[in-house]
Amino acid sequence: MRPPFEARHPDYAARVRKSFSRQTAMASLGITLADLGPGWVDLALVRDPRFTQQHGFVHAGVMATALDSACGYAAFSLMPADAAVLTVEYKVNLMSRADEDEYLVRGWVLKAGRTLAVCQGEAVGESSAKTIAVMTATIMTLVGADIEA
Amino acid sequence: MRPPFEARHPDYAARVRKSFSRQTAMASLGITLADLGPGWVDLALVRDPRFTQQHGFVHAGVMATALDSACGYAAFSLMPADAAVLTVEYKVNLMSRADEDEYLVRGWVLKAGRTLAVCQGEAVGESSAKTIAVMTATIMTLVGADIEA
Amino acid sequence: MRPPFEARHPDYAARVRKSFSRQTAMASLGITLADLGPGWVDLALVRDPRFTQQHGFVHAGVMATALDSACGYAAFSLMPADAAVLTVEYKVNLMSRADEDEYLVRGWVLKAGRTLAVCQGEAVGESSAKTIAVMTATIMTLVGADIEA
Amino acid sequence: MRPPFEARHPDYAARVRKSFSRQTAMASLGITLADLGPGWVDLALVRDPRFTQQHGFVHAGVMATALDSACGYAAFSLMPADAAVLTVEYKVNLMSRADEDEYLVRGWVLKAGRTLAVCQGEAVGESSAKTIAVMTATIMTLVGADIEA
Repeated sequence: MRPPFEARHPDYAARVRKSFSRQTAMASLGITLADLGPGWVDLALVRDPRFTQQHGFVHAGVMATALDSACGYAAFSLMPADAAVLTVEYKVNLMSRADEDEYLVRGWVLKAGRTLAVCQGEAVGESSAKTIAVMTATIMTLVGADIEA
Repeated sequence: MRPPFEARHPDYAARVRKSFSRQTAMASLGITLADLGPGWVDLALVRDPRFTQQHGFVHAGVMATALDSACGYAAFSLMPADAAVLTVEYKVNLMSRADEDEYLVRGWVLKAGRTLAVCQGEAVGESSAKTIAVMTATIMTLVGADIEA
Repeated sequence: MRPPFEARHPDYAARVRKSFSRQTAMASLGITLADLGPGWVDLALVRDPRFTQQHGFVHAGVMATALDSACGYAAFSLMPADAAVLTVEYKVNLMSRADEDEYLVRGWVLKAGRTLAVCQGEAVGESSAKTIAVMTATIMTLVGADIEA
Repeated sequence: MRPPFEARHPDYAARVRKSFSRQTAMASLGITLADLGPGWVDLALVRDPRFTQQHGFVHAGVMATALDSACGYAAFSLMPADAAVLTVEYKVNLMSRADEDEYLVRGWVLKAGRTLAVCQGEAVGESSAKTIAVMTATIMTLVGADIEA
């Protein structure tokens, strides 16, 4: 699950942390940046009773939001310093109910092309080690004029 | 976009509204139930600065959470009275940046089978009428023992 | 379902027909180009007993191959004359068994960006008018060096 | 990638082989069953000039057809003896052009529920060892009346 990427930029980790901290949705939803490396990101998600579905479990959309960020920042960690990151699409398969309190949400790059990256993500219950959800995502590198487009 | 379904249960709208109100994530994220009918649901999403991505736009995951609920409740509106609803999977394509303040988020049923429903969703900017994102989702009907499984 | 695109290039239809004819998989699988316009393509698929699944129905993968081509050429119809077309990803939901002999397989563009297009597709049974499958696809425009990359 | 499933039925391999041999699309497209175990299937795909896209590479839809079968039979290998298998949906991300002559196409089960299984698939070029495409799929177990429904 750890992709064999070398760091492409010395400050990639700082750039990921800075951009992540500007996603207000992360802190508001209880999602924090646990660890990262070139081509992968680990997030931690804590269940918050304000963000559940109708049975009190973590809302699937909230879990997917964490997976989306994990995938996006995994790709961003390999991008040039002046690039911005954009999620093109993702698909999530929900495999087990999210009735635990803490989750590890991992994203990693399968392929990092010049314009597009293909990433995978996985959310795992901290106490059960059960896989809760899996994601595949297409992430786009925006440079120059495209960022403002 | 309005599917040709007849109401299958006289109290379907009340059941959808009741279950929706128990999804704490909806109110917390600024998502409200605007309208519904048999096989379709319209939600309204208001941008909240607490739930943005790094450029201040609505986080893709938050938009997808609204789409997921719209699809899930569209399917739920056709389910038997004793059924519970479960999202099996969804895919979202993000088409335009979510830089507006208000969105209409629609979900509708394409096919309602006994066990699975296939739904589509669309998020549209209220002022621009631009399509922001589209979703296809597989929604499962859980009955009896499966609800507790 | 007919997207509101204007023709961007006078010879778009000829270019689609020429490229389609070079996809040997189309003729081999019984898929023909029925009609097209700017941003949309209609294909016809005839069931062939050589390409079925285990119960004699059209193999889901063959139906998806037709949908993929319909989506890809819908996007290609709006691309610059020197561009090549590449499917980035697609998702197909299979809704009804493909037990008929003939199908209409439509693809259309939802959004045509400079680099990426988002397309939808639908396969419908000719005699039943039942929707057999739906697709969403991301299609990429390749220009210049990227074509050879 | 090898899931930790135990064989649930002594004759699972024979059942997979028998059903696979009835999918005429497999032999017609040059796809053969290379190996299998409980919860996984390996297929081999040989490029055939009759089934290419416009540049002579394996058509994405043909590659996805092999991945769909690999995922479906991976799930089928864990199903009860009287069950039939149905693909609910799949998504494929195409990562590299399919310009080689031979591919290993693997499918494996991530989760095998009573009604639904979540599977992943991967197509790898035999000589390059490059990942060509990845898939996630939802596969349904049909029993009794549902098979005829």
